[in-house]
Parts: sequence; C-alpha cells; structure tokens
Amino acid sequence: MSIKVIAFDADDTLWVNEPYFRETENEFCQLMEAYLPQHTVARELLHTEIKNLTLYGYGIKGFMLSMIETALTVSNNTIDISAVDKIITYGKALLARPIVVLEGVEEVLQSLKGHYRLVVATKGDLLDQERKLRNSGLDHYFHHVEVMSDKQPKDYKKLLKHLDIQPEQFLMIGNSLKSDVLPVLDLGGHAIHIPFHTTWAHEHVDVHIDNPNFRQVEQIMDVLPLFISPSSEIS
Amino acid sequence: MSIKVIAFDADDTLWVNEPYFRETENEFCQLMEAYLPQHTVARELLHTEIKNLTLYGYGIKGFMLSMIETALTVSNNTIDISAVDKIITYGKALLARPIVVLEGVEEVLQSLKGHYRLVVATKGDLLDQERKLRNSGLDHYFHHVEVMSDKQPKDYKKLLKHLDIQPEQFLMIGNSLKSDVLPVLDLGGHAIHIPFHTTWAHEHVDVHIDNPNFRQVEQIMDVLPLFISPSSEIS
Repeated sequence: MSIKVIAFDADDTLWVNEPYFRETENEFCQLMEAYLPQHTVARELLHTEIKNLTLYGYGIKGFMLSMIETALTVSNNTIDISAVDKIITYGKALLARPIVVLEGVEEVLQSLKGHYRLVVATKGDLLDQERKLRNSGLDHYFHHVEVMSDKQPKDYKKLLKHLDIQPEQFLMIGNSLKSDVLPVLDLGGHAIHIPFHTTWAHEHVDVHIDNPNFRQVEQIMDVLPLFISPSSEIS
Repeated sequence: MSIKVIAFDADDTLWVNEPYFRETENEFCQLMEAYLPQHTVARELLHTEIKNLTLYGYGIKGFMLSMIETALTVSNNTIDISAVDKIITYGKALLARPIVVLEGVEEVLQSLKGHYRLVVATKGDLLDQERKLRNSGLDHYFHHVEVMSDKQPKDYKKLLKHLDIQPEQFLMIGNSLKSDVLPVLDLGGHAIHIPFHTTWAHEHVDVHIDNPNFRQVEQIMDVLPLFISPSSEIS
C-alpha cells in the first residue's frame, strides 16, 4: 500500500518554537526568583501547565494563564501586580515572534509536492498556528492544515477519517516521539522522527521503537532518500 | 442547485453561550467597581478584547487574559493581586459550565440528518468547542466540526474548498448576522438567521438584508418547514 498523505508536525519540525518558549520561561523564572530558585519555579510552572492542559489545551494563551497562576501560587498571592503586567508582555512578545523556518524544510516540501498530499498536523492555538504558517511562507505547499486539540490515537483516527485514507497510506513526520510517532504507529501508519535539540518536558518519552513503519533521521533533508531508494519501505 | 451541506453555528445557535459570558463579565465589573462604574469597566473590557482579537482570537482563554489586562489598566496597576486570582477562577468556571442545548435543536438535527451533510462551523478555542460539542451529546449528528479562527468571507471560502462544494450548495444557520449570514451571502451561499436574545456588542450589526438566499426565523424549529414547503427556494 503506497503513501498518499504526508503530514508534518509544525513546531520544531517546520520552524523553531520550543527554544522561544524556554526563553520566555527563563524570563518568568527570573521574575519569580525572589520567591523560589529558578529551577523550582520551572517545576511549579510545568506542574500548573499539565494540570491545566485538559482545560486550556496547548498553545501560548494557556501558557500565559499558567504563568500568571504559578506567580500567584509561588508567591502565595503576595507578588506585586506589576509582575502580572510583565507576564502578559512576555506572552504577547512570544505570540509576535518572527517565524524561523528550519534548514532544509523548503527543499523537502518542494520535492514532495505534487507526489503526495501534504498537510500540517499540529497542536496549539488555532489562530496562532494559522498565523505562523502564513508568516512562514510555506502555506502554499500544503493542501490542508489540521490544528488538533491533542495527538492521541483517537485524534489521528479522526484526522484519517477526515482525510478519507487508511492508516497505511499515512506518514507523519515530526520531532515528538510521544505526539508524532507512537500514536501513528499504533494505528498502523508510518512515522519519521526528526529529533529537535529542545523538547518540552511533557513531550519527553524514553522508548526504543522496533517497527518496520518507523524511521529516525537527523535532519529533515534526510527524509528525501527514503522516498527514492528502491530498498525503502516508504514509497 | 440543491443544498448539500448545512452548517450550524454553535454558540447561541445549538446551545446557550453568550449569557454565561455576560454573567462572568458582570462579576468582573463588580470586582472592579472600586475603580470605575460597572458600565465603564464593561466598555474598557470590550475595548481590550477587540484590541487583542488579532493576537488571541475568539474564546474564553483570550477573554480571561483581556479581563486580567483590563484590571491592570483600569486600576493603573494598583489592584490587589487577589483580583487576578478571582478572574482566573471566573474563567475556569466559565470553561466548566454545563452545556444547555437550545429548544428544538435535537429535533431539527434528527430531521435533517441523512438528507444533508451536517457540519458545525464555529469560532472559539478549539479544545473548548470540541468539549462543548461532546458534552452536548449532539456530536453524532455531525459529519465534521470546523473550528474557524474567524468568519470572514475568506474563511468560508476555505471551508467550502475543504468541503469540496460550491457556495450555492452551502447553507449556514446561525445567530450572528455579521458572522453567520453576511459573509455567506457575499459568496453566493444560503443563510438562515435565528436571532438570540443576547448578542456580544462586537457581533452586532444593524442592516436590512434583501437577498433571495436569506431567511430569518424566530426559532430553530422554524427552519424545518423551509425544507419541505414546495414554494421554498431552499430544497
């Protein structure tokens, strides 16, 4: 069965994202340093973010609200109100960051376009992800953008139904084993993992994958030979 | 040309929404009463919300962030930090409100299902709208849910392309002339307006519509006769 749809994760697969979140988190931890050591603040923030995930979902707005909530908790509601003002400023700056497309992305999309239906499959805030795709200048390569509230097997099932294809016809490319690889392999789809140097703690998994539908490459350019090599399963 | 897809707006078309936002807004205005009269706070909040729309989009998380920002502005950064805690509590309560499906909705969906492709076309936070649809118990009626970052003609154009239909094959049913009716008629589609007693100020338009593709009804049950009457254009 040949692949019909190639889905790309967006953040840290097509463009830089997580390092910006970490920079903002560092600013936040410095702001809170009077109350707790920076690494303890970071742990508290992660705890608040995970607790709020089912309510807020992924994305910068939820991150902003969780930073504000953490500032209240960590300071036991004693922090000066100006800290909240600063957090809102940090968040808005994060929302306005220019998009830096990762090396090789454009060449890969250029090579694959026309041969496969290319889609973006990403978590995060709808408007923010649409904005990033538009600002990346990559939108014309894609048939469709799916902003997903989560990337569990059930969410991919919905995506496949929506794309009207079978799991074997689907290849997902992304930087998160947890979100982009494992659930797709679970359904019988194909997945290519391209690790990124910075990964959010909540996305981290330690796992060895032994599956013929799975490949790991170092950078996005390395996926191209997989489509033209006669020995490849991916064709 | 016959209609193939009927799209329903969600908030205040399928279920109660705006009154809950207004209740939360009232709580917020009472909280800020020490600084400004309630109606002035409400005006400031609306101003902040509209200013932030391009950055945050629609939905409760942006509403929460705009309430917090308004509290800072209105108090000139002097308000007690506990107010921010209260605003987060208001917002989380709003996110957790049970869904109250509007009268007649289920009967209408039941009658139309199987004859047309039914979809939900809504603005707002992705995760929150998915949660509301699931909790409404109405999800099995719908082929597809499209959470849109905005409802401008360009957004509907994308939806139509995505649904693979012509504008004349599309009927939108909703409570907002600005978001559900005018942009759809603009593209040559059909629209039915069902006014709801409470409308957000930013959605309000004062306009007379003279278009053969347009109908206005008092309640959702009134749309059914439009599909079976031989004199109706909608069939």
